[in-house]
Amino acid sequence: MQIGFVGLGKMGMNMVTRLRRDRHDVVVHDLSTDKVREAEATGAVGTGSLADLVGKLAKPRAVWVMVPAGKPTEETVRQLAAALEADDVVIDGGNTYYKDDVRRAGELSARGIHYLDAGTSGGIWGLELGYCLMIGGPEPVFRRVEPVFRTLAPENGYLHVGGSGSGHYVKMIHNGIEYALMQSYAEGFELLAKSDYGLDLAGIAELWMHGSVVRSWLLELAGTALRADPKLESIRGWVADSGEGRWTVLDAIEKDVPAALITQSLFVRFRSRQEDSFGEKMLAALRNQFGGHAVKRKS
Amino acid sequence: MQIGFVGLGKMGMNMVTRLRRDRHDVVVHDLSTDKVREAEATGAVGTGSLADLVGKLAKPRAVWVMVPAGKPTEETVRQLAAALEADDVVIDGGNTYYKDDVRRAGELSARGIHYLDAGTSGGIWGLELGYCLMIGGPEPVFRRVEPVFRTLAPENGYLHVGGSGSGHYVKMIHNGIEYALMQSYAEGFELLAKSDYGLDLAGIAELWMHGSVVRSWLLELAGTALRADPKLESIRGWVADSGEGRWTVLDAIEKDVPAALITQSLFVRFRSRQEDSFGEKMLAALRNQFGGHAVKRKS
Repeated sequence: MQIGFVGLGKMGMNMVTRLRRDRHDVVVHDLSTDKVREAEATGAVGTGSLADLVGKLAKPRAVWVMVPAGKPTEETVRQLAAALEADDVVIDGGNTYYKDDVRRAGELSARGIHYLDAGTSGGIWGLELGYCLMIGGPEPVFRRVEPVFRTLAPENGYLHVGGSGSGHYVKMIHNGIEYALMQSYAEGFELLAKSDYGLDLAGIAELWMHGSVVRSWLLELAGTALRADPKLESIRGWVADSGEGRWTVLDAIEKDVPAALITQSLFVRFRSRQEDSFGEKMLAALRNQFGGHAVKRKS
Repeated sequence: MQIGFVGLGKMGMNMVTRLRRDRHDVVVHDLSTDKVREAEATGAVGTGSLADLVGKLAKPRAVWVMVPAGKPTEETVRQLAAALEADDVVIDGGNTYYKDDVRRAGELSARGIHYLDAGTSGGIWGLELGYCLMIGGPEPVFRRVEPVFRTLAPENGYLHVGGSGSGHYVKMIHNGIEYALMQSYAEGFELLAKSDYGLDLAGIAELWMHGSVVRSWLLELAGTALRADPKLESIRGWVADSGEGRWTVLDAIEKDVPAALITQSLFVRFRSRQEDSFGEKMLAALRNQFGGHAVKRKS
Protein backbone atom coordinates (compact mmCIF):
# COMPACT_ATOMS: atom_id res chain seq x y z
CA MET A 1 0.00 0.00 0.00
CA GLN A 2 1.01 3.65 -0.09
CA ILE A 3 2.39 5.12 3.14
CA GLY A 4 4.01 8.38 4.15
CA PHE A 5 6.98 8.08 6.46
CA VAL A 6 8.37 10.91 8.58
CA GLY A 7 11.68 10.41 10.42
CA LEU A 8 14.61 8.58 8.90
CA GLY A 9 16.75 7.91 11.97
CA LYS A 10 18.23 4.51 12.83
CA MET A 11 14.82 2.86 13.27
CA GLY A 12 12.96 4.85 10.59
CA MET A 13 15.44 4.21 7.80
CA ASN A 14 15.47 0.47 8.53
CA MET A 15 11.67 0.42 8.50
CA VAL A 16 11.52 2.24 5.17
CA THR A 17 14.05 -0.25 3.79
CA ARG A 18 11.91 -3.15 4.99
CA LEU A 19 8.76 -1.57 3.52
CA ARG A 20 10.48 -1.01 0.17
CA ARG A 21 11.74 -4.61 0.08
CA ASP A 22 8.10 -5.63 0.25
CA ARG A 23 7.36 -3.11 -2.57
CA HIS A 24 5.19 -0.71 -0.59
CA ASP A 25 4.89 2.75 -2.13
CA VAL A 26 6.72 4.90 0.47
CA VAL A 27 6.82 8.71 0.48
CA VAL A 28 9.40 10.00 2.97
CA HIS A 29 10.43 13.14 4.79
CA ASP A 30 13.22 14.00 7.23
CA LEU A 31 14.83 17.25 8.38
CA SER A 32 18.11 15.92 6.92
CA THR A 33 18.15 16.00 3.11
CA ASP A 34 21.00 13.45 3.24
CA LYS A 35 18.64 11.01 4.94
CA VAL A 36 15.96 11.71 2.33
CA ARG A 37 18.52 10.97 -0.43
CA GLU A 38 19.48 7.74 1.36
CA ALA A 39 15.83 6.65 1.52
CA GLU A 40 15.37 7.51 -2.17
CA ALA A 41 18.08 4.96 -2.94
CA THR A 42 15.67 2.26 -1.66
CA GLY A 43 13.08 3.49 -4.16
CA ALA A 44 11.15 5.71 -1.74
CA VAL A 45 9.85 9.09 -2.97
CA GLY A 46 11.62 11.95 -1.19
CA THR A 47 9.92 15.22 -0.21
CA GLY A 48 11.14 18.60 1.02
CA SER A 49 8.48 19.34 3.64
CA LEU A 50 5.56 17.79 5.49
CA ALA A 51 3.15 19.71 3.21
CA ASP A 52 5.01 18.32 0.17
CA LEU A 53 4.73 14.78 1.67
CA VAL A 54 1.00 15.18 2.28
CA GLY A 55 0.57 16.49 -1.27
CA LYS A 56 2.24 13.41 -2.74
CA LEU A 57 -0.09 10.93 -0.97
CA ALA A 58 -3.43 9.70 -2.31
CA LYS A 59 -6.53 10.08 -0.09
CA PRO A 60 -7.27 8.67 2.39
CA ARG A 61 -3.65 9.11 3.48
CA ALA A 62 -1.62 7.16 6.03
CA VAL A 63 1.51 8.69 7.53
CA TRP A 64 3.89 6.88 9.89
CA VAL A 65 5.70 9.21 12.31
CA MET A 66 9.01 7.84 13.60
CA VAL A 67 10.72 10.72 15.38
CA PRO A 68 11.95 11.05 18.99
CA ALA A 69 9.16 10.98 21.59
CA GLY A 70 8.06 14.18 23.30
CA LYS A 71 8.36 17.55 21.61
CA PRO A 72 9.62 16.34 18.18
CA THR A 73 6.68 13.90 17.84
CA GLU A 74 4.20 16.45 19.20
CA GLU A 75 5.38 19.10 16.71
CA THR A 76 5.42 16.69 13.78
CA VAL A 77 1.91 15.42 14.49
CA ARG A 78 0.65 19.01 14.92
CA GLN A 79 2.13 20.15 11.61
CA LEU A 80 1.03 17.00 9.81
CA ALA A 81 -2.51 17.32 11.13
CA ALA A 82 -2.68 20.87 9.79
CA ALA A 83 -2.03 19.53 6.27
CA LEU A 84 -4.10 16.34 6.53
CA GLU A 85 -7.83 15.94 5.89
CA ALA A 86 -10.71 13.98 7.36
CA ASP A 87 -10.30 10.17 7.17
CA ASP A 88 -6.51 10.37 6.89
CA VAL A 89 -4.50 8.36 9.46
CA VAL A 90 -1.47 9.25 11.55
CA ILE A 91 0.50 6.35 13.03
CA ASP A 92 2.89 7.21 15.83
CA GLY A 93 5.56 4.49 15.88
CA GLY A 94 7.81 6.20 18.45
CA ASN A 95 8.00 5.77 22.22
CA THR A 96 5.24 8.20 23.12
CA TYR A 97 3.79 8.29 26.64
CA TYR A 98 0.40 6.63 26.25
CA LYS A 99 -1.48 9.49 27.90
CA ASP A 100 -0.22 11.78 25.14
CA ASP A 101 -1.69 9.35 22.60
CA VAL A 102 -5.09 9.49 24.26
CA ARG A 103 -5.02 13.30 24.18
CA ARG A 104 -3.74 13.48 20.60
CA ALA A 105 -6.25 10.92 19.31
CA GLY A 106 -8.98 13.11 20.82
CA GLU A 107 -7.60 16.29 19.29
CA LEU A 108 -7.27 14.75 15.82
CA SER A 109 -10.67 13.07 15.92
CA ALA A 110 -12.28 16.53 16.25
CA ARG A 111 -11.15 17.04 12.65
CA GLY A 112 -11.98 13.49 11.57
CA ILE A 113 -8.32 12.44 11.39
CA HIS A 114 -7.54 8.98 12.76
CA TYR A 115 -4.66 8.16 15.04
CA LEU A 116 -2.95 4.84 15.79
CA ASP A 117 -0.22 4.35 18.38
CA ALA A 118 2.24 1.60 17.47
CA GLY A 119 4.67 0.44 20.13
CA THR A 120 7.69 -0.87 18.28
CA SER A 121 10.30 -3.28 19.65
CA GLY A 122 13.25 -4.90 17.93
CA GLY A 123 16.01 -2.29 17.83
CA ILE A 124 18.66 -2.49 15.14
CA TRP A 125 17.82 -6.17 14.58
CA GLY A 126 14.37 -5.27 13.30
CA LEU A 127 15.53 -4.68 9.74
CA GLU A 128 16.30 -8.38 9.28
CA LEU A 129 14.12 -10.03 11.95
CA GLY A 130 11.12 -7.69 11.86
CA TYR A 131 9.66 -5.41 14.54
CA CYS A 132 7.25 -6.54 17.21
CA LEU A 133 4.32 -4.10 16.94
CA MET A 134 1.72 -3.36 19.63
CA ILE A 135 -1.04 -1.26 18.10
CA GLY A 136 -3.70 0.86 19.79
CA GLY A 137 -6.61 2.75 18.23
CA PRO A 138 -9.85 2.06 16.36
CA GLU A 139 -9.98 -1.46 14.92
CA PRO A 140 -11.20 -0.47 11.39
CA VAL A 141 -8.32 2.01 11.08
CA PHE A 142 -5.90 -0.69 12.24
CA ARG A 143 -7.26 -2.99 9.50
CA ARG A 144 -6.67 -0.30 6.87
CA VAL A 145 -2.97 -0.01 7.76
CA GLU A 146 -2.53 -3.74 8.40
CA PRO A 147 -0.49 -4.42 5.21
CA VAL A 148 2.21 -2.11 6.58
CA PHE A 149 2.20 -3.81 9.99
CA ARG A 150 2.39 -7.20 8.29
CA THR A 151 5.52 -6.16 6.39
CA LEU A 152 7.25 -4.52 9.34
CA ALA A 153 6.63 -7.38 11.77
CA PRO A 154 7.86 -10.98 11.71
CA GLU A 155 5.15 -13.65 11.42
CA ASN A 156 2.59 -13.21 14.25
CA GLY A 157 4.56 -10.16 15.34
CA TYR A 158 1.84 -7.49 15.34
CA LEU A 159 -1.35 -7.20 17.32
CA HIS A 160 -4.19 -4.73 17.77
CA VAL A 161 -4.13 -4.65 21.58
CA GLY A 162 -6.93 -2.14 22.28
CA GLY A 163 -8.12 1.46 22.12
CA SER A 164 -6.09 4.66 21.75
CA GLY A 165 -2.91 4.62 23.81
CA SER A 166 -2.96 0.88 24.46
CA GLY A 167 -0.22 0.18 21.93
CA HIS A 168 2.21 2.50 23.67
CA TYR A 169 0.90 1.41 27.08
CA VAL A 170 1.78 -2.22 26.34
CA LYS A 171 5.13 -1.12 24.88
CA MET A 172 5.84 0.88 28.06
CA ILE A 173 5.25 -2.17 30.27
CA HIS A 174 7.32 -4.23 27.82
CA ASN A 175 10.22 -1.86 28.38
CA GLY A 176 9.74 -1.85 32.14
CA ILE A 177 10.04 -5.65 32.06
CA GLU A 178 13.06 -5.29 29.77
CA TYR A 179 14.83 -3.06 32.33
CA ALA A 180 14.35 -5.67 35.05
CA LEU A 181 15.31 -8.62 32.82
CA MET A 182 18.53 -6.84 31.84
CA GLN A 183 19.33 -6.06 35.47
CA SER A 184 18.63 -9.68 36.46
CA TYR A 185 21.25 -10.96 34.04
CA ALA A 186 23.59 -8.11 34.98
CA GLU A 187 23.56 -9.12 38.65
CA GLY A 188 24.06 -12.81 37.87
CA PHE A 189 26.98 -12.16 35.54
CA GLU A 190 28.61 -9.82 38.07
CA LEU A 191 28.51 -12.67 40.60
CA LEU A 192 29.95 -15.10 38.06
CA ALA A 193 32.66 -12.57 37.15
CA LYS A 194 33.72 -12.30 40.80
CA SER A 195 33.92 -16.06 41.31
CA ASP A 196 37.31 -17.65 42.03
CA TYR A 197 36.54 -20.37 39.46
CA GLY A 198 37.82 -18.23 36.56
CA LEU A 199 34.62 -18.85 34.64
CA ASP A 200 34.18 -18.34 30.89
CA LEU A 201 31.19 -15.99 31.01
CA ALA A 202 30.56 -15.99 27.26
CA GLY A 203 30.72 -19.78 27.23
CA ILE A 204 28.20 -19.94 30.08
CA ALA A 205 25.84 -17.46 28.37
CA GLU A 206 25.96 -19.60 25.23
CA LEU A 207 25.57 -22.82 27.23
CA TRP A 208 22.44 -21.48 28.93
CA MET A 209 20.88 -20.87 25.51
CA HIS A 210 20.61 -24.64 25.10
CA GLY A 211 17.90 -26.17 27.28
CA SER A 212 18.16 -23.94 30.36
CA VAL A 213 15.25 -22.10 31.95
CA VAL A 214 16.90 -18.66 31.53
CA ARG A 215 17.34 -18.80 27.77
CA SER A 216 16.23 -15.63 26.03
CA TRP A 217 17.13 -13.20 23.31
CA LEU A 218 18.76 -10.84 25.85
CA LEU A 219 20.93 -13.75 27.04
CA GLU A 220 21.96 -14.38 23.44
CA LEU A 221 23.00 -10.71 23.19
CA ALA A 222 24.87 -11.05 26.52
CA GLY A 223 26.82 -13.93 25.00
CA THR A 224 27.70 -11.85 21.95
CA ALA A 225 28.88 -8.92 24.10
CA LEU A 226 30.94 -11.18 26.37
CA ARG A 227 32.48 -13.04 23.45
CA ALA A 228 33.70 -9.72 22.01
CA ASP A 229 34.97 -8.39 25.36
CA PRO A 230 35.10 -11.16 28.01
CA LYS A 231 35.67 -8.78 30.94
CA LEU A 232 33.75 -5.82 29.46
CA GLU A 233 36.96 -3.78 29.80
CA SER A 234 36.08 -1.47 26.92
CA ILE A 235 32.76 -0.34 28.44
CA ARG A 236 31.92 2.02 31.30
CA GLY A 237 29.05 1.09 33.58
CA TRP A 238 27.06 4.19 32.62
CA VAL A 239 23.49 3.45 31.61
CA ALA A 240 20.94 5.81 30.08
CA ASP A 241 17.18 5.48 30.32
CA SER A 242 14.71 6.75 27.80
CA GLY A 243 11.40 7.25 29.59
CA GLU A 244 9.44 4.02 29.52
CA GLY A 245 11.06 2.72 32.71
CA ARG A 246 10.07 5.90 34.56
CA TRP A 247 6.54 5.77 33.19
CA THR A 248 6.19 2.12 34.22
CA VAL A 249 7.13 3.10 37.78
CA LEU A 250 4.59 5.95 37.69
CA ASP A 251 2.00 3.44 36.47
CA ALA A 252 2.86 1.09 39.34
CA ILE A 253 2.30 3.98 41.77
CA GLU A 254 -1.03 4.87 40.12
CA LYS A 255 -2.21 1.27 40.34
CA ASP A 256 -0.77 0.38 43.81
CA VAL A 257 1.31 -2.44 42.28
CA PRO A 258 4.52 -3.26 44.21
CA ALA A 259 6.75 -3.42 41.12
CA ALA A 260 9.93 -3.51 43.17
CA LEU A 261 12.26 -5.02 40.57
CA ILE A 262 11.27 -2.70 37.74
CA THR A 263 11.64 0.28 40.09
CA GLN A 264 15.00 -0.89 41.41
CA SER A 265 16.32 -1.54 37.89
CA LEU A 266 15.53 2.08 37.01
CA PHE A 267 17.29 3.30 40.16
CA VAL A 268 20.38 1.22 39.30
CA ARG A 269 20.58 3.21 36.07
CA PHE A 270 20.30 6.49 37.99
CA ARG A 271 23.15 5.38 40.29
CA SER A 272 25.25 4.30 37.30
CA ARG A 273 25.30 7.91 36.11
CA GLN A 274 26.48 9.43 39.40
CA GLU A 275 30.23 9.92 39.81
CA ASP A 276 29.71 10.07 43.54
CA SER A 277 26.41 9.92 45.39
CA PHE A 278 25.21 12.54 47.85
CA GLY A 279 23.16 9.86 49.57
CA GLU A 280 26.24 7.68 50.05
CA LYS A 281 28.27 10.65 51.29
CA MET A 282 25.44 11.19 53.79
CA LEU A 283 25.65 7.51 54.82
CA ALA A 284 29.39 7.76 55.34
CA ALA A 285 28.99 11.00 57.30
CA LEU A 286 26.37 9.44 59.60
CA ARG A 287 28.51 6.36 60.31
CA ASN A 288 31.28 8.76 61.19
CA GLN A 289 29.03 10.82 63.45
CA PHE A 290 27.63 8.07 65.62
CA GLY A 291 30.45 5.57 65.53
CA GLY A 292 33.57 7.50 64.63
CA HIS A 293 33.92 5.23 61.61
CA ALA A 294 36.52 6.42 59.12
CA VAL A 295 35.37 8.42 56.11
CA LYS A 296 37.33 8.66 52.87
CA ARG A 297 38.27 12.31 52.42
CA LYS A 298 38.21 13.84 48.98
CA SER A 299 41.78 14.36 47.76
CA MET B 1 28.36 -46.23 28.07
CA GLN B 2 27.39 -47.97 31.32
CA ILE B 3 26.09 -45.75 34.10
CA GLY B 4 24.54 -46.32 37.51
CA PHE B 5 21.60 -44.08 38.33
CA VAL B 6 20.28 -43.45 41.85
CA GLY B 7 17.02 -41.55 42.31
CA LEU B 8 14.03 -42.06 40.04
CA GLY B 9 11.95 -38.99 40.86
CA LYS B 10 10.41 -36.70 38.25
CA MET B 11 13.81 -35.57 36.92
CA GLY B 12 15.65 -38.86 37.44
CA MET B 13 13.10 -41.03 35.66
CA ASN B 14 13.05 -38.71 32.66
CA MET B 15 16.83 -38.74 32.51
CA VAL B 16 16.96 -42.55 32.63
CA THR B 17 14.37 -42.63 29.84
CA ARG B 18 16.49 -40.25 27.77
CA LEU B 19 19.65 -42.31 28.44
CA ARG B 20 17.88 -45.55 27.47
CA ARG B 21 16.55 -43.99 24.23
CA ASP B 22 20.18 -43.41 23.32
CA ARG B 23 20.91 -47.06 24.30
CA HIS B 24 23.14 -46.42 27.28
CA ASP B 25 23.45 -49.35 29.66
CA VAL B 26 21.72 -48.00 32.79
CA VAL B 27 21.66 -49.70 36.20
CA VAL B 28 19.16 -48.04 38.53
CA HIS B 29 18.20 -47.82 42.17
CA ASP B 30 15.49 -46.01 44.09
CA LEU B 31 13.95 -46.43 47.54
CA SER B 32 10.63 -47.11 45.78
CA THR B 33 10.51 -50.53 44.13
CA ASP B 34 7.64 -49.24 41.95
CA LYS B 35 9.97 -46.64 40.49
CA VAL B 36 12.61 -49.30 39.89
CA ARG B 37 10.01 -51.42 38.03
CA GLU B 38 9.03 -48.36 35.98
CA ALA B 39 12.66 -47.76 35.00
CA GLU B 40 13.09 -51.43 34.11
CA ALA B 41 10.32 -50.95 31.54
CA THR B 42 12.69 -48.61 29.67
CA GLY B 43 15.27 -51.41 29.57
CA ALA B 44 17.26 -50.29 32.61
CA VAL B 45 18.59 -52.91 35.03
CA GLY B 46 16.90 -52.61 38.44
CA THR B 47 18.65 -53.23 41.76
CA GLY B 48 17.51 -53.64 45.37
CA SER B 49 20.23 -51.65 47.14
CA LEU B 50 23.15 -49.34 46.53
CA ALA B 51 25.54 -52.23 47.16
CA ASP B 52 23.63 -54.30 44.60
CA LEU B 53 23.89 -51.42 42.11
CA VAL B 54 27.63 -51.08 42.66
CA GLY B 55 28.02 -54.84 42.23
CA LYS B 56 26.28 -54.74 38.84
CA LEU B 57 28.59 -52.05 37.39
CA ALA B 58 31.90 -52.74 35.63
CA LYS B 59 35.03 -50.96 36.90
CA PRO B 60 35.79 -48.09 36.73
CA ARG B 61 32.20 -47.31 37.68
CA ALA B 62 30.19 -44.14 37.13
CA VAL B 63 27.10 -43.44 39.26
CA TRP B 64 24.73 -40.52 38.75
CA VAL B 65 23.01 -39.38 41.95
CA MET B 66 19.69 -37.57 41.39
CA VAL B 67 18.07 -37.27 44.80
CA PRO B 68 16.92 -34.20 46.74
CA ALA B 69 19.73 -31.87 47.79
CA GLY B 70 20.91 -31.79 51.40
CA LYS B 71 20.62 -34.83 53.65
CA PRO B 72 19.30 -37.32 51.04
CA THR B 73 22.19 -36.56 48.65
CA GLU B 74 24.73 -36.52 51.50
CA GLU B 75 23.54 -39.93 52.76
CA THR B 76 23.41 -41.46 49.29
CA VAL B 77 26.92 -40.29 48.41
CA ARG B 78 28.25 -41.52 51.77
CA GLN B 79 26.72 -44.99 51.33
CA LEU B 80 27.74 -45.18 47.69
CA ALA B 81 31.30 -44.17 48.49
CA ALA B 82 31.51 -46.97 51.05
CA ALA B 83 30.77 -49.51 48.29
CA LEU B 84 32.81 -47.86 45.50
CA GLU B 85 36.51 -48.27 44.79
CA ALA B 86 39.39 -46.10 43.63
CA ASP B 87 38.92 -44.55 40.15
CA ASP B 88 35.12 -44.86 40.28
CA VAL B 89 33.13 -41.65 39.70
CA VAL B 90 30.15 -40.15 41.50
CA ILE B 91 28.17 -37.50 39.62
CA ASP B 92 25.84 -35.36 41.70
CA GLY B 93 23.14 -34.05 39.37
CA GLY B 94 20.97 -32.51 42.10
CA ASN B 95 20.83 -28.97 43.41
CA THR B 96 23.64 -29.28 45.93
CA TYR B 97 25.16 -26.19 47.58
CA TYR B 98 28.51 -25.84 45.84
CA LYS B 99 30.48 -25.66 49.09
CA ASP B 100 29.18 -29.16 49.91
CA ASP B 101 30.56 -30.34 46.57
CA VAL B 102 34.00 -28.96 47.38
CA ARG B 103 33.99 -30.74 50.75
CA ARG B 104 32.66 -34.01 49.30
CA ALA B 105 35.09 -34.02 46.39
CA GLY B 106 37.88 -33.67 48.97
CA GLU B 107 36.53 -36.49 51.14
CA LEU B 108 36.11 -38.89 48.22
CA SER B 109 39.49 -38.05 46.68
CA ALA B 110 41.15 -39.33 49.89
CA ARG B 111 39.97 -42.77 48.73
CA GLY B 112 40.75 -42.15 45.05
CA ILE B 113 37.06 -41.79 44.14
CA HIS B 114 36.25 -39.00 41.67
CA TYR B 115 33.39 -36.57 42.03
CA LEU B 116 31.64 -34.39 39.43
CA ASP B 117 28.96 -31.83 40.22
CA ALA B 118 26.44 -31.39 37.42
CA GLY B 119 24.06 -28.45 37.63
CA THR B 120 20.96 -29.48 35.70
CA SER B 121 18.36 -27.14 34.20
CA GLY B 122 15.35 -27.90 32.06
CA GLY B 123 12.65 -29.17 34.42
CA ILE B 124 9.94 -31.43 33.06
CA TRP B 125 10.70 -30.28 29.50
CA GLY B 126 14.16 -31.85 29.67
CA LEU B 127 12.93 -35.30 28.60
CA GLU B 128 12.11 -34.05 25.11
CA LEU B 129 14.30 -30.93 24.80
CA GLY B 130 17.32 -32.09 26.79
CA TYR B 131 18.86 -30.74 29.99
CA CYS B 132 21.31 -27.87 30.14
CA LEU B 133 24.27 -29.25 32.13
CA MET B 134 26.93 -27.21 33.96
CA ILE B 135 29.68 -29.56 35.08
CA GLY B 136 32.40 -29.05 37.69
CA GLY B 137 35.32 -31.32 38.61
CA PRO B 138 38.52 -32.71 37.08
CA GLU B 139 38.56 -32.39 33.29
CA PRO B 140 39.73 -35.99 32.55
CA VAL B 141 36.89 -37.36 34.68
CA PHE B 142 34.45 -35.09 32.83
CA ARG B 143 35.75 -36.52 29.53
CA ARG B 144 35.15 -40.05 30.74
CA VAL B 145 31.46 -39.37 31.49
CA GLU B 146 30.97 -37.11 28.46
CA PRO B 147 28.86 -39.61 26.45
CA VAL B 148 26.22 -39.41 29.19
CA PHE B 149 26.26 -35.59 29.21
CA ARG B 150 26.00 -35.58 25.41
CA THR B 151 22.85 -37.72 25.57
CA LEU B 152 21.19 -35.81 28.39
CA ALA B 153 21.82 -32.34 26.92
CA PRO B 154 20.53 -30.76 23.72
CA GLU B 155 23.19 -29.85 21.14
CA ASN B 156 25.82 -27.55 22.75
CA GLY B 157 23.91 -27.94 26.00
CA TYR B 158 26.66 -29.17 28.34
CA LEU B 159 29.92 -27.56 29.43
CA HIS B 160 32.78 -28.30 31.78
CA VAL B 161 32.81 -24.96 33.57
CA GLY B 162 35.66 -25.49 36.07
CA GLY B 163 36.89 -27.27 39.19
CA SER B 164 34.89 -29.02 41.91
CA GLY B 165 31.73 -27.14 42.89
CA SER B 166 31.75 -24.87 39.82
CA GLY B 167 28.95 -26.79 38.11
CA HIS B 168 26.59 -26.25 41.02
CA TYR B 169 27.94 -22.73 41.57
CA VAL B 170 26.99 -21.74 38.01
CA LYS B 171 23.64 -23.50 38.40
CA MET B 172 23.03 -21.56 41.63
CA ILE B 173 23.61 -18.22 39.90
CA HIS B 174 21.47 -19.46 37.00
CA ASN B 175 18.61 -20.00 39.43
CA GLY B 176 19.17 -16.64 41.11
CA ILE B 177 18.81 -15.00 37.69
CA GLU B 178 15.75 -17.17 37.05
CA TYR B 179 14.06 -15.87 40.23
CA ALA B 180 14.56 -12.27 39.12
CA LEU B 181 13.51 -12.92 35.51
CA MET B 182 10.30 -14.56 36.70
CA GLN B 183 9.58 -11.67 39.06
CA SER B 184 10.26 -9.15 36.25
CA TYR B 185 7.58 -10.71 34.07
CA ALA B 186 5.29 -11.13 37.09
CA GLU B 187 5.38 -7.39 37.83
CA GLY B 188 4.83 -6.41 34.20
CA PHE B 189 1.86 -8.74 33.78
CA GLU B 190 0.30 -7.53 37.04
CA LEU B 191 0.43 -3.98 35.65
CA LEU B 192 -1.09 -5.14 32.35
CA ALA B 193 -3.79 -7.06 34.24
CA LYS B 194 -4.76 -3.90 36.15
CA SER B 195 -5.01 -1.76 33.02
CA ASP B 196 -8.37 -0.36 31.97
CA TYR B 197 -7.71 -1.42 28.38
CA GLY B 198 -9.00 -4.94 29.02
CA LEU B 199 -5.85 -6.43 27.55
CA ASP B 200 -5.49 -10.01 26.31
CA LEU B 201 -2.47 -11.02 28.40
CA ALA B 202 -1.93 -14.36 26.69
CA GLY B 203 -2.11 -12.67 23.30
CA ILE B 204 0.45 -10.08 24.40
CA ALA B 205 2.80 -12.76 25.80
CA GLU B 206 2.61 -14.59 22.48
CA LEU B 207 2.99 -11.36 20.49
CA TRP B 208 6.18 -10.50 22.39
CA MET B 209 7.68 -13.85 21.36
CA HIS B 210 7.88 -12.49 17.81
CA GLY B 211 10.61 -9.91 17.37
CA SER B 212 10.45 -8.17 20.76
CA VAL B 213 13.42 -7.61 23.07
CA VAL B 214 11.80 -9.52 25.97
CA ARG B 215 11.28 -12.81 24.16
CA SER B 216 12.41 -15.82 26.20
CA TRP B 217 11.47 -19.31 27.15
CA LEU B 218 9.92 -18.08 30.42
CA LEU B 219 7.73 -15.68 28.41
CA GLU B 220 6.63 -18.62 26.26
CA LEU B 221 5.62 -20.48 29.43
CA ALA B 222 3.82 -17.32 30.65
CA GLY B 223 1.80 -17.35 27.43
CA THR B 224 0.89 -21.01 27.95
CA ALA B 225 -0.23 -20.39 31.55
CA LEU B 226 -2.27 -17.32 30.59
CA ARG B 227 -3.89 -19.09 27.64
CA ALA B 228 -5.09 -21.84 29.98
CA ASP B 229 -6.28 -19.43 32.71
CA PRO B 230 -6.40 -15.81 31.45
CA LYS B 231 -6.88 -14.28 34.91
CA LEU B 232 -4.96 -16.96 36.83
CA GLU B 233 -8.11 -17.54 38.84
CA SER B 234 -7.27 -21.16 39.60
CA ILE B 235 -3.92 -20.36 41.23
CA ARG B 236 -3.01 -18.90 44.61
CA GLY B 237 -0.08 -16.49 44.76
CA TRP B 238 1.93 -18.76 47.06
CA VAL B 239 5.47 -19.36 45.86
CA ALA B 240 8.02 -21.80 47.26
CA ASP B 241 11.77 -21.50 46.99
CA SER B 242 14.21 -24.36 46.92
CA GLY B 243 17.56 -23.04 48.12
CA GLU B 244 19.50 -21.65 45.17
CA GLY B 245 17.93 -18.19 45.47
CA ARG B 246 18.97 -17.98 49.14
CA TRP B 247 22.48 -19.20 48.34
CA THR B 248 22.80 -16.64 45.54
CA VAL B 249 21.94 -13.88 48.03
CA LEU B 250 24.52 -15.28 50.48
CA ASP B 251 27.05 -15.27 47.63
CA ALA B 252 26.23 -11.63 46.86
CA ILE B 253 26.86 -10.78 50.52
CA GLU B 254 30.17 -12.71 50.52
CA LYS B 255 31.30 -10.88 47.38
CA ASP B 256 29.93 -7.38 48.17
CA VAL B 257 27.78 -7.44 45.00
CA PRO B 258 24.60 -5.31 45.20
CA ALA B 259 22.30 -7.98 43.72
CA ALA B 260 19.16 -6.07 44.62
CA LEU B 261 16.75 -7.67 42.15
CA ILE B 262 17.72 -11.26 42.92
CA THR B 263 17.43 -10.50 46.65
CA GLN B 264 14.09 -8.77 46.26
CA SER B 265 12.69 -11.58 44.11
CA LEU B 266 13.51 -14.02 46.93
CA PHE B 267 11.82 -11.74 49.48
CA VAL B 268 8.70 -11.53 47.28
CA ARG B 269 8.45 -15.30 47.61
CA PHE B 270 8.81 -15.08 51.39
CA ARG B 271 6.00 -12.49 51.50
CA SER B 272 3.82 -14.64 49.24
CA ARG B 273 3.79 -17.33 51.92
CA GLN B 274 2.68 -15.08 54.78
CA GLU B 275 -1.05 -14.87 55.48
CA ASP B 276 -0.45 -11.62 57.28
CA SER B 277 2.88 -9.95 57.93
CA PHE B 278 4.18 -8.97 61.34
CA GLY B 279 6.24 -6.24 59.69
CA GLU B 280 3.17 -4.81 58.02
CA LYS B 281 1.19 -4.98 61.27
CA MET B 282 4.08 -3.04 62.81
CA LEU B 283 3.83 -0.47 60.01
CA ALA B 284 0.11 -0.07 60.52
CA ALA B 285 0.60 0.24 64.29
CA LEU B 286 3.26 2.93 63.88
CA ARG B 287 1.09 4.97 61.50
CA ASN B 288 -1.64 4.74 64.09
CA GLN B 289 0.73 5.79 66.92
CA PHE B 290 2.11 8.96 65.38
CA GLY B 291 -0.73 10.05 63.20
CA GLY B 292 -3.84 8.40 64.56
CA HIS B 293 -4.29 6.75 61.17
CA ALA B 294 -6.91 4.04 61.16
CA VAL B 295 -5.82 0.43 61.57
CA LYS B 296 -7.86 -2.54 60.36
CA ARG B 297 -8.76 -4.59 63.44
CA LYS B 298 -8.75 -8.35 63.26
CA SER B 299 -12.31 -9.61 63.26
